Parts: sequence; structure tokens; C-alpha cells
Amino acid sequence: MLTINSINKGIVIDHIKAGLGEKIFSHLKLNKSKTPVALIMNVSSNAVGRKDIIKIDEHIDLDYDFLGFVDPNITINIIEDGVITDKISLELPEKIENIIKCNNPRCITSIESNIPNKFYLASGNKGIYRCEYCDGEYSPF
Amino acid sequence: MLTINSINKGIVIDHIKAGLGEKIFSHLKLNKSKTPVALIMNVSSNAVGRKDIIKIDEHIDLDYDFLGFVDPNITINIIEDGVITDKISLELPEKIENIIKCNNPRCITSIESNIPNKFYLASGNKGIYRCEYCDGEYSPF
Repeated sequence: MLTINSINKGIVIDHIKAGLGEKIFSHLKLNKSKTPVALIMNVSSNAVGRKDIIKIDEHIDLDYDFLGFVDPNITINIIEDGVITDKISLELPEKIENIIKCNNPRCITSIESNIPNKFYLASGNKGIYRCEYCDGEYSPF
Repeated sequence: MLTINSINKGIVIDHIKAGLGEKIFSHLKLNKSKTPVALIMNVSSNAVGRKDIIKIDEHIDLDYDFLGFVDPNITINIIEDGVITDKISLELPEKIENIIKCNNPRCITSIESNIPNKFYLASGNKGIYRCEYCDGEYSPF
């Protein structure tokens, strides 16, 4: 089994739904990083069957809204001196900005290019987001 | 330091020049794989300073011409029952097909879309390739 040892200092983004790791890896620009980073995909997980994991060998700012929107089941461990000093659970963010685009061709954001794409969480259970301008529905699942 | 334990069975693509790992990972379609795979970037290496590593938890066919063209210093370890059973060193391939495109706008491959892009190694020391049709130069370095 492919496993990765713990890191001494940095961030572990764990329990990523299998297949979504690469998207997150690219969004966080880790593919352009000069720091040691690892993208591990499709490893076994008792909790979720298969999962992806990202390890970053330093502390960087993370876009929690993006991560929570992509997969609210992600957990984030902050490591210091080989010990987990903080464990962050995510949830679907109430609002997101410039993460997804409105599909409605008549929406103002489809017509005017300089208007930010803003969505609000309309149904937490179903993970449904609606455009702040036209109420157009967008579901991440 | 971020490290990855050995795998029991599979392939380790090692000593990839730092920064090229993601390109190889995508080319081998490991980002679409259902098998456990890992892309590790920017780890310390005594031999080359910084390097990328790819680990694959099963045996798959590799495109040695592509790998040798991208980075002839790559080494490939084949693992069986936790032991390295084969160690493959790469070199610049004599010929490559459909890996790069000819930049010459007057070359037949630029005009006709169904002609394969073939290059031959014109200077091994300098890593210079030439188009089989127009002799246009292409250097991977």
C-alpha cells in the first residue's frame, strides 16, 4: 500500500473525495510550488472508501471557501514539530465569490464581464447554490 | 521532510527534474487513474538538488520514449513483493513520434493535419531533435 510518512511542519489536506485531489492541487497552485508537496490519489480510507490527500511541507494560506465548496468533508491538519496543532473541519460556505460561473445566458454576469460571480447557499442539505443576481441554481454535487 | 514509504508492488519513477513531475503525471493519465498513485514534488535529492517522484501502486505500461525525451536522467524502479526487481535508466530516444510538433509553418506536418510528427535525434550531446520532413530543429532543453 502506498503511504506517506507524516511531515514535521506543514499542512495535510485529508479525506478529499477520490478524484478531486488534482483539482484542489492545481487551484492552490501547488503544481507551481517550490516547496515539497505531495498529491496522493485513490488511497484506501476506512471512512470514505477511497480518498485523495495533499501534503504541503510548509504553512500556506488556504482558501477555505473553495475547499468547503469543492468537498465539505475535507479535514485539514496543521502540523508543527511533528504534532497536529490544529484540526479544521470544513462545511459548505454560506457565500462564494468567483469560484463558479452562472450558467444563465441572460444573467448580468454572463453579459458584463467585470461583474463578480457571487452565489449563496440556498439549501445546505442538498448543497444547492443560487446566483445572487438572477437566482439561477448551481449544484456542486 | 516529506517522504513516502516504499510500495509493495508497482513502479517508482524517480529523479525527475523538479517541476516536470506534473507534466509526466498528466501524460501518463495518472490523474484519471483509479489505482493509488502519488506525485511528490520538490523533494531534496543528493544527486540533483530537488527532484520530483511518481509512485504507482500497480504495473502499467510506460512510454519510455516520452519519458526519455522529457528527462533522460529519470530512473524507473519496478517493485515486486517490496523489492526492486528491475531498475531502468533512460536516455534520449533516437526517434520520437507525436510527442512534439514541428514549429515550421511551411513544414508538411503544419499544413496537413493527418501526418504524424516524427523527429530524430540529431545531436545526442546537445539533445537536439530535427523534424523528419523539413529538418527543422527542436531542442527539449
